[in-house]
Amino acid sequence: MAETPAPAIVGMAMEDVDTPALLVDLDAFERNLKRMADAIKGSKAKLRPHSKTHKCPVVALRQMAHGAVGACCQKVGEAEAMVYGGVPDVLVSNQIVGAPKLVRLAALARQARIRVCADNTDNVADLDTAAGAAGVVLDVLVEIDVGAERCGVAPGAPALALAKTIEQAANLKFGGLQAYHGRSQHIRAYEDRRAAAETAIALTKDTVALLSENGLTCDIVGGAGTGTYQFEAGSGVYNELQAGSYVFMDVDYGKNEDERGAAFQDFENSLFIYATVMSRVTDDRAILDAGLKALSVDSGMPRMCDLPGVEFVGASDEHGKLAIDKSVVGSNRDLKVGDKVRVIPGHVDPTVNLYDWYVGIRNGKVESLWPITARGMLR
Amino acid sequence: MAETPAPAIVGMAMEDVDTPALLVDLDAFERNLKRMADAIKGSKAKLRPHSKTHKCPVVALRQMAHGAVGACCQKVGEAEAMVYGGVPDVLVSNQIVGAPKLVRLAALARQARIRVCADNTDNVADLDTAAGAAGVVLDVLVEIDVGAERCGVAPGAPALALAKTIEQAANLKFGGLQAYHGRSQHIRAYEDRRAAAETAIALTKDTVALLSENGLTCDIVGGAGTGTYQFEAGSGVYNELQAGSYVFMDVDYGKNEDERGAAFQDFENSLFIYATVMSRVTDDRAILDAGLKALSVDSGMPRMCDLPGVEFVGASDEHGKLAIDKSVVGSNRDLKVGDKVRVIPGHVDPTVNLYDWYVGIRNGKVESLWPITARGMLR
Repeated sequence: MAETPAPAIVGMAMEDVDTPALLVDLDAFERNLKRMADAIKGSKAKLRPHSKTHKCPVVALRQMAHGAVGACCQKVGEAEAMVYGGVPDVLVSNQIVGAPKLVRLAALARQARIRVCADNTDNVADLDTAAGAAGVVLDVLVEIDVGAERCGVAPGAPALALAKTIEQAANLKFGGLQAYHGRSQHIRAYEDRRAAAETAIALTKDTVALLSENGLTCDIVGGAGTGTYQFEAGSGVYNELQAGSYVFMDVDYGKNEDERGAAFQDFENSLFIYATVMSRVTDDRAILDAGLKALSVDSGMPRMCDLPGVEFVGASDEHGKLAIDKSVVGSNRDLKVGDKVRVIPGHVDPTVNLYDWYVGIRNGKVESLWPITARGMLR
Repeated sequence: MAETPAPAIVGMAMEDVDTPALLVDLDAFERNLKRMADAIKGSKAKLRPHSKTHKCPVVALRQMAHGAVGACCQKVGEAEAMVYGGVPDVLVSNQIVGAPKLVRLAALARQARIRVCADNTDNVADLDTAAGAAGVVLDVLVEIDVGAERCGVAPGAPALALAKTIEQAANLKFGGLQAYHGRSQHIRAYEDRRAAAETAIALTKDTVALLSENGLTCDIVGGAGTGTYQFEAGSGVYNELQAGSYVFMDVDYGKNEDERGAAFQDFENSLFIYATVMSRVTDDRAILDAGLKALSVDSGMPRMCDLPGVEFVGASDEHGKLAIDKSVVGSNRDLKVGDKVRVIPGHVDPTVNLYDWYVGIRNGKVESLWPITARGMLR
């Protein structure tokens, strides 16, 4: 468990980067940062981007330089990686369960601004104990289920009850609502996606009002993702947006449609798996050195970049299979063993988690090597 | 990019292991080692287990203590991890392409017995150059496509031609045939699986004979996996078997059928994802702290252990969703937040690649922490 060696040296040509590797097109990445900042300018919502996507404090700090208020994450180990990489304000947008993790979470709250979510009274009691033992007061948000059917208590009265439990705990403070509708992010049709988001927004709005009637103020009302951020931004209800994938994008988000039914293009692909053709025996097939351990296929296959007529059709542990249709116009590049190609990840988050390094590319050269310090931080 | 901290301390109770973690049931693991050794006893084939499954030299050395002749692997980084962990004989059962990797491969051949595969004449020339520069003679096997439609030249004349090219290279030696039929491993019905394996065996046998007629001897005739090992072992053609999953097993291999149409039970599940219930809001649902970054779903969902009526129905990045059917007999364990459960991986190889540590369990206690040193060794 030494880290894996870096696949590149700063200054080398992109074509010399060893494969498989994660390439960041730095110009596209920076355009995505700016586009999101511009898109939410003027709304009451600030960005708190999800670091579960990039797992890299260098990226989180770039997001903060574009106006983000901090980062969110799902695991204590991710929060530690962000804090130790210089991020001063982290929301764990998830439940943290079990004494070893709670001890670490409370200890981290002595070193940075840390908030966490809860959906269970026993867990709130455990959070209180851990915060007390560490001598900190921890802000705890109530997670409400606004349609994802995953974690979270029901909006309305159950949320109020849990908020009161938090507020009454000696070492906790009620910190607001976590109201993320994960499933809605990937609804393809714009109007259907908007409808799902609006339902979540309405449930959240009512719960905020109920809490307010009972003297409880939401410091944070957080949620939203790359698929719905514009709806929550315009809602007047949410004040923090937790989009993560927008910095890199992937094939899955690329399947969303915009309001005209065209492909969603608010952001562009800035992350690529760089891979080498390792076998080319038949005319209709090429094999890449990137398989299930180099890219995640949970949300469908990745897609080839710059290669019309070439389709990524299957992945085994260490091999990616390409089908080549030479009849497609523009498919005139005859892939041969040793050729390097760019692949757009099918699903960005679990793909990033397979790597220790981002290779930053600008003008065809390696400009930076960023360590993915929260890679594998499952706990 | 420090390694992830270990999730346990040697000597602690299993219930105290932090989650998600990879548990090895050491008794079951050792039974699997012995069963495979017993199953192939008396055949001309020796075991050269695939380390792409376990990525851990500790496991490879245990396999060698049960008669394995060495290890195989897919990547130079895996080979380095095995050699530096004490494995003296490694076959890279794959094509290695590109100068940076070939330099490392040839350098490693000065430190251990290293062999590699090829299916392309340009790649053979590059292997020759790298071996010459390092001052080594490298054994190169010809990979033949015996039905997998992935890498490998066609059996027969194309294999002979490539073998001659290897043998004529100044710094290479023809080392035999790599003849692995990946797709056949997961054919569920016994007779269909056997038929696929027999086809591969026949193609391999003919190619061995053709090579022999041309004065070329196969030091290694290698292939086979956990799904078909008994056919290659009994073939009289193969002398090395590359099964890997047998040490741990998974849900996918558990779907294979034996000759009576019953579930394949040559080996038992010895590897488990240990996970914690982190949310339990509704009666029919529980959420685990293990999602796509803790288990691979490429070959289908994982399965719950010891919990009748509880099904693993979906994974998002950091959450696993359980559906609970209380009407199922025996489903009397009322899962609550904080409970820890064992999950059988859907597909073992990419799941292992998500972790840095195996937690070895015997008699309910942590007996060992084995580092997964080839985790992430993609290059």
